[in-house]
Amino acid sequence: MSSMWGKNIKLSIFGESHGKAIGVVIDGLPPGIELDIEYINKEMNRRAPGKNKISTSRKEGDKYEILSGYFNGKTTGTPLASVIYNTNQRSRDYEAVKSIMRPGHADYTGHIRYSGFNDYRGGGHFSGRLTAPLVFAGAIAKQILLNKNILIGSHIKSIGNIEDNSFNSINIDASLLRNLSRKEFSVIDDEKGREMKEYILKIKEEKDSVGGIIEAAIINLPLGLGSPFFDSVESKLSHIIFSIPAVKGVEFGEGFNITKMKGSQANDELYIKEGKVTAYSNNNGGILGGITNGMPIILKVAIKPTPSIGKLQRTVDIEKGIETEFEIKGRHDPCIVPRAVPVIEAAIAMALVDLIMEKGELI
Amino acid sequence: MSSMWGKNIKLSIFGESHGKAIGVVIDGLPPGIELDIEYINKEMNRRAPGKNKISTSRKEGDKYEILSGYFNGKTTGTPLASVIYNTNQRSRDYEAVKSIMRPGHADYTGHIRYSGFNDYRGGGHFSGRLTAPLVFAGAIAKQILLNKNILIGSHIKSIGNIEDNSFNSINIDASLLRNLSRKEFSVIDDEKGREMKEYILKIKEEKDSVGGIIEAAIINLPLGLGSPFFDSVESKLSHIIFSIPAVKGVEFGEGFNITKMKGSQANDELYIKEGKVTAYSNNNGGILGGITNGMPIILKVAIKPTPSIGKLQRTVDIEKGIETEFEIKGRHDPCIVPRAVPVIEAAIAMALVDLIMEKGELI
Amino acid sequence: MSSMWGKNIKLSIFGESHGKAIGVVIDGLPPGIELDIEYINKEMNRRAPGKNKISTSRKEGDKYEILSGYFNGKTTGTPLASVIYNTNQRSRDYEAVKSIMRPGHADYTGHIRYSGFNDYRGGGHFSGRLTAPLVFAGAIAKQILLNKNILIGSHIKSIGNIEDNSFNSINIDASLLRNLSRKEFSVIDDEKGREMKEYILKIKEEKDSVGGIIEAAIINLPLGLGSPFFDSVESKLSHIIFSIPAVKGVEFGEGFNITKMKGSQANDELYIKEGKVTAYSNNNGGILGGITNGMPIILKVAIKPTPSIGKLQRTVDIEKGIETEFEIKGRHDPCIVPRAVPVIEAAIAMALVDLIMEKGELI
Amino acid sequence: MSSMWGKNIKLSIFGESHGKAIGVVIDGLPPGIELDIEYINKEMNRRAPGKNKISTSRKEGDKYEILSGYFNGKTTGTPLASVIYNTNQRSRDYEAVKSIMRPGHADYTGHIRYSGFNDYRGGGHFSGRLTAPLVFAGAIAKQILLNKNILIGSHIKSIGNIEDNSFNSINIDASLLRNLSRKEFSVIDDEKGREMKEYILKIKEEKDSVGGIIEAAIINLPLGLGSPFFDSVESKLSHIIFSIPAVKGVEFGEGFNITKMKGSQANDELYIKEGKVTAYSNNNGGILGGITNGMPIILKVAIKPTPSIGKLQRTVDIEKGIETEFEIKGRHDPCIVPRAVPVIEAAIAMALVDLIMEKGELI
Repeated sequence: MSSMWGKNIKLSIFGESHGKAIGVVIDGLPPGIELDIEYINKEMNRRAPGKNKISTSRKEGDKYEILSGYFNGKTTGTPLASVIYNTNQRSRDYEAVKSIMRPGHADYTGHIRYSGFNDYRGGGHFSGRLTAPLVFAGAIAKQILLNKNILIGSHIKSIGNIEDNSFNSINIDASLLRNLSRKEFSVIDDEKGREMKEYILKIKEEKDSVGGIIEAAIINLPLGLGSPFFDSVESKLSHIIFSIPAVKGVEFGEGFNITKMKGSQANDELYIKEGKVTAYSNNNGGILGGITNGMPIILKVAIKPTPSIGKLQRTVDIEKGIETEFEIKGRHDPCIVPRAVPVIEAAIAMALVDLIMEKGELI
Repeated sequence: MSSMWGKNIKLSIFGESHGKAIGVVIDGLPPGIELDIEYINKEMNRRAPGKNKISTSRKEGDKYEILSGYFNGKTTGTPLASVIYNTNQRSRDYEAVKSIMRPGHADYTGHIRYSGFNDYRGGGHFSGRLTAPLVFAGAIAKQILLNKNILIGSHIKSIGNIEDNSFNSINIDASLLRNLSRKEFSVIDDEKGREMKEYILKIKEEKDSVGGIIEAAIINLPLGLGSPFFDSVESKLSHIIFSIPAVKGVEFGEGFNITKMKGSQANDELYIKEGKVTAYSNNNGGILGGITNGMPIILKVAIKPTPSIGKLQRTVDIEKGIETEFEIKGRHDPCIVPRAVPVIEAAIAMALVDLIMEKGELI
Repeated sequence: MSSMWGKNIKLSIFGESHGKAIGVVIDGLPPGIELDIEYINKEMNRRAPGKNKISTSRKEGDKYEILSGYFNGKTTGTPLASVIYNTNQRSRDYEAVKSIMRPGHADYTGHIRYSGFNDYRGGGHFSGRLTAPLVFAGAIAKQILLNKNILIGSHIKSIGNIEDNSFNSINIDASLLRNLSRKEFSVIDDEKGREMKEYILKIKEEKDSVGGIIEAAIINLPLGLGSPFFDSVESKLSHIIFSIPAVKGVEFGEGFNITKMKGSQANDELYIKEGKVTAYSNNNGGILGGITNGMPIILKVAIKPTPSIGKLQRTVDIEKGIETEFEIKGRHDPCIVPRAVPVIEAAIAMALVDLIMEKGELI
Repeated sequence: MSSMWGKNIKLSIFGESHGKAIGVVIDGLPPGIELDIEYINKEMNRRAPGKNKISTSRKEGDKYEILSGYFNGKTTGTPLASVIYNTNQRSRDYEAVKSIMRPGHADYTGHIRYSGFNDYRGGGHFSGRLTAPLVFAGAIAKQILLNKNILIGSHIKSIGNIEDNSFNSINIDASLLRNLSRKEFSVIDDEKGREMKEYILKIKEEKDSVGGIIEAAIINLPLGLGSPFFDSVESKLSHIIFSIPAVKGVEFGEGFNITKMKGSQANDELYIKEGKVTAYSNNNGGILGGITNGMPIILKVAIKPTPSIGKLQRTVDIEKGIETEFEIKGRHDPCIVPRAVPVIEAAIAMALVDLIMEKGELI
């Protein structure tokens, strides 16, 4: 089992990087949602490679085709399937090196997991390319959330050691989030963004790669989403976010930093604002006891450096049973973080729709 | 929905802090597992409060009674239910303050989530006390893992700013893990442990609290557990770990720190050791593509400061609809981290058993 | 896996016939449901043995204790656990015959399934006694449905070849259903009921047993429950009903009989009644395309004869590896059908609550 | 939610009768299964319409394309997606009559369930055409079972009142099952088959339709599959079988007939045959306590008459809010039973693979 997810709304993701097609089935969508195709395309484009120098020059051709569940411009409520046919595959590149396990990739674990029968070309089902159908599904989920005025926004909090500003965790303007989603390089402080891009280009020249941290915020969520224990908002969000390749850490609110605080600092003291209970701070990132408290949800996600690098690396040829050295050829992102931004948002959007449907809304 | 978990082995946790009883049903246990009751008791005791000055002086009486699924000293394979009756309840303490929302607690979110019908006494179903049945279940899961030579061990990596050593991520000795599980205060460097304890006592005198980080390691796991995407090992582990009250962050391997590395540093280069593929480093924490690679799994968990503090805090009385100030009375842990160690291990053990059963073993 | 069920509302059933206790955890109940304890007791009593001559004289002592999820007379919304301690066990009876497989029982299949580690006494986890917690849960589900004016009623359609009248499938009065639930022997035509009872007593004298058919009806269900394919109302209902020991068949509407009709007879032609779409007939039992159509749901359930009979039977002693003959001693129901009536209703009630919650109601 | 199914192996079915495509994603297939494409095509062909006079003359073009999860002739273990593009659609036929609810169909319930947004053309997602992807998936499941020597076979037990012989429930030859699967009209007694076909043609001339009963048998299943209560073999099988359009009843072994027996007749007495425990009869259809006992599984499925008939029917126009009369035009099966045979078998095959994987095999 692997590639199905969800309770109230469900995803089934399929495909391999160099197979015939990748795609997704979304089951449980409310009927009658008018799809803004242009918006979906924009989201797909945010993830797409080949847009600029800091991304891979590889073009993927993320043209999707909706096969079902969509009628007269609206969702039908039955499963919506969407397929992206693979083009521009260079399968032959992979044949020669199929037994050489790329460090930092799932080549070896995938080989073991699937007893050697998995499609090894370009990472197969493990490929970052499989996040395209997730972004497609997330774009629909985001529209559903937008219809309820719920916004997800995120920015590149850091690339290597270069840090962007943080969100103001108690007061996040919708216009800021909207603005971030329009940026090609999503940072709050564009000056820092320039520094980051320069750094990425420098790393690219070194044939190396670099990672970073994405900070996401969700505003206007209803109070009372989630449940204690196994359906905590943190559990649901971390589960789907850790499904995204290259994610190695997730924290909510002050996260690891909250461990350095005293309780008297960490506790978000409450007061009444315009008749509503709210807090002076948001160290808990909008979640207490696994349940939303009406403040913005704030979370950070650690993205590791792209494992594909042009530098010579020591590894193993499992067919020959020998140690070897290896340079990864081809076009690769020196930093996957910018393209991961819409993917993280898509994952968050899916989890939120599922949580909201749990409350019997959207149905 | 909230308190059921699992796919191949399932938990159903129930109870409120000051209700009649708390407990757990474990469904899907393999039949014929001989339970080491003494071991279960030791694990329960590791979590139990009232053992020393740095813990609450409250005694909880964690005597459990196995009601089913256990026959002639062995599991039957049918659901194993275990109940812990609540004693030593001081329910009256809570009546007077039931409308005062304690900052950092789930009082307000729980009130909203359950429309005011939840049992507010002592946190009700949100109480840390509900981790006792989880530790019970985890103790059984750990025995199942031990039968396959799989060990989970963990230590207090930090309290506030005081840091213990880290695990050596590529070579962790079973004796170290066993040793840690026997310590009343689980640290690698006991000198640092003494510092931590002193700091906790100082914080206690201030009527304040403090959090910390737990680092866990799993050794001797089979290769090839987990699946790409939604059943990644990180997804499964983070899901259940974020179910534990007070957890605000989870990271695997170098986690957030890996974002500061270059790909050439972060990638774990491979070589052959005694005929097996292994790596020179373990920055990915034993997981690639969501699948175990045979190296130790390393993860860190951020635990926030205990929200119950004796200091005066600003908050809200939701019945009266006014702002107020409030001092939490009673006996509370100034630092929950030491008692959280076996809880984190229990959660990990449950997830690992589930993942191993996915492979058709243990059945 | 075995004894957990449900999507929106979940059950976890545990216990063995002669272990310490049996019970159930219900997760996902809406908060604030006022429980009518007297009603629950009445339902438990409908299932209880030892009430009359046609039932076993064994007294089971079905006193339940609610351990959690219930506060100030109402559900809290957190898991509601209920335990029934076993008393009046005669475990020694079973020791001597534990290796003799009773025909028609799960002795042999259970032995294989659990590798010989299951509790064999009195059927263990397979015992009909495990339907007591299901009736408890169902009694709560029925109250939830009653709050929405949804009624479930059923009667003994046949015992052996003696047939009661059938429901009028297009027009079922609430008073009829209520009346049936109050009867000790639930039949529409009491004269037929007397015949059935006489027949059961005759069979009892023969040390034999007999089965029958239960017909159930549900009225006032909302239109549009259920989904095509795997969440069809028939799928959901049959799944939980076939979980009840001794059930060997389930049919909806005209069921197997509809195969003898022509389409022009079987199709329920539509018309408009008081502004609403309804049908002239209800051969489809209130379900089309897996979805409720607003007419009564009608279903029939086949219950096999009690496998425990006093007659000499040929069987196998698996320890000695020999064929043998065997008379089941002790007190047994010559016909389980009357006591199965509330069990079937409980199962239906659980499935309906789950289906209704899918629509976002009751939450 | 609707169209996803399974625990250990999962299906996601999508599509509408007159949309772009229908299809299925199968998640959790074991890697390395060599697919016999010819066998899949044969199974697809068994279900396909337009083969003879007793079937609709409509050609559906069930050419499937495997998009993923299949590499070098074998399953990869990652999700296998298969798509069937719709051709030969006459969408315009449906526009004119979209507000006229066809009796016996899901037109009205679907309209309500999806708030009028569902694709009404040709039944949309409710169409029997959606069983094509199920047969595709089932053909793979059957191959997996065949690799373990497990055979599923079935025949038309009755059409209207014309009855075929029954299986000999204690001794079913593999060659009989294989033979049935090769027949265009699957009956044991071909003479009865001729009668049935004549009857169907007669009914067709009347512009009417007729239903029937399918009897299925499974041989060589391992002992000990299934679990008490909610994962009983009956629960799992009935759940997926009742998902198939037109199914109104399911019974195991003697089913409804067992209610007419006495316990002494119904109980399957045990003896030892070639060192193995077996029974003199198989009234329980190979299942006791929800668990397989090693005998053939026998079950019967009631299929209602095709609701599409050429006769004039009374119904409702929901747009105009009036009663009306209506003749269904177009090409329809006068009896769907022969084409339902491979569909029932496919559903059974899926459930069995899921049950066997629960035991940790096939993985």
